[in-house]
Amino acid sequence: MEELVYRPIGHIRSCYPEKFGAPRQPGLVKHAITEIVLSQAFSSEEAVSGLTAFSHIWVLFHFHKTAAAGWKPKVRPPRLGGNKSVGVFASRSPFRPNPIGLSAVRLLSVQERDGLQILSVEGGDFVDGAPVLDIKPYIPYVDAIDAAEGGYAAEKPEPCLEVRFTEEAEQNLRQYSLQYPNLRELIIETIGLDPRPSYKKSQADTKVYGLALYDLNISWRVHENYALISAVAPLSVNE
Amino acid sequence: MEELVYRPIGHIRSCYPEKFGAPRQPGLVKHAITEIVLSQAFSSEEAVSGLTAFSHIWVLFHFHKTAAAGWKPKVRPPRLGGNKSVGVFASRSPFRPNPIGLSAVRLLSVQERDGLQILSVEGGDFVDGAPVLDIKPYIPYVDAIDAAEGGYAAEKPEPCLEVRFTEEAEQNLRQYSLQYPNLRELIIETIGLDPRPSYKKSQADTKVYGLALYDLNISWRVHENYALISAVAPLSVNE
Repeated sequence: MEELVYRPIGHIRSCYPEKFGAPRQPGLVKHAITEIVLSQAFSSEEAVSGLTAFSHIWVLFHFHKTAAAGWKPKVRPPRLGGNKSVGVFASRSPFRPNPIGLSAVRLLSVQERDGLQILSVEGGDFVDGAPVLDIKPYIPYVDAIDAAEGGYAAEKPEPCLEVRFTEEAEQNLRQYSLQYPNLRELIIETIGLDPRPSYKKSQADTKVYGLALYDLNISWRVHENYALISAVAPLSVNE
Repeated sequence: MEELVYRPIGHIRSCYPEKFGAPRQPGLVKHAITEIVLSQAFSSEEAVSGLTAFSHIWVLFHFHKTAAAGWKPKVRPPRLGGNKSVGVFASRSPFRPNPIGLSAVRLLSVQERDGLQILSVEGGDFVDGAPVLDIKPYIPYVDAIDAAEGGYAAEKPEPCLEVRFTEEAEQNLRQYSLQYPNLRELIIETIGLDPRPSYKKSQADTKVYGLALYDLNISWRVHENYALISAVAPLSVNE
């Protein structure tokens, strides 16, 4: 069978070490600042010259955390509540025949650091370590189709959970505020989208969840109509 | 070096057998009706169910005609007149480290034919035979970024050549009108964009060009301010 072989041009550096918690689409979590670190072979200033004239870029990347799981012809998108299915090609599920992700994100800067070209982007939905296949400029006259009809995903999902912090969590936040200045906003935006499986959404739920952000574990559970963050602590290696 | 191996989910069937003449972006040639033929392994009705609820789809495909040529860090986009260069990642050039194309096109229909699922799309910019990597629904709230700034490609290119036909070409068109009902419109739209190399654009030019459409060769040259189609004839195998 015909094979197409590609080599990553770089890798994602993101605040989401795991798939759980990473936003399901780009643009939903403004404070999820993400870097795209181009590999040595693609890190010439020439290759990225002119890129900052564009406000947004396409990032094509490999869904490295789900690739091994393979694909099925039907998937249950979170947007359908997890109980209706559609064809894999009618979804943006990461479980697909060729696990290639496609995200348009705002480009904040392109900088050289330790000899590598680093693109900072806003509102990424990437899991840390994802191999990057390509960067293309977002060209509005080609890519922005306002009149397109969005099927079951016509409306942008709004944050559905209010996020509160225990006193302990507030103390933890103060402790990490120097290292991660926007940690509070990042937690509110990420957990506010309710990353739980769809069938649990908008339900109170006694389970205490752990969500990984950077090298931290965020402990939280869902009460009647809000999420309560109980602790922010170092992510142990076993987690 | 890390390798990512993908297998095509299908192939493009297009009116453009060669790169020369294929539009440089999707949506520019309305009559370039293109089919995406899914391979047997991906042709279940299930895999495409729900797709027609979306008006547009993303097609990720392999630039099979340019892949062997490799890439350079700088390219000269036609939009800059072919004499200014930008970084390859600031361009949509097909000559890139991983030659993956990305096009949003209107989905006209999904039909089964000879046991294969066939997606008909409008306004494609694909070369015939291109391997398809993925189909994703176009989701306006995620993908349509109106406020994006388009750098050097901010404006949509308009047709720049009026297209006229000799009497011989008119006769040829009548001959092929049954097989290709929209051939005239396709020729006008395709050659109207002036597919010549950028440095020749908007210049009169004594060279007679051949442009392949389906299995036909369109002969034309550029006079002062218009293109004259002189003949439409079968594409010989040597061409």
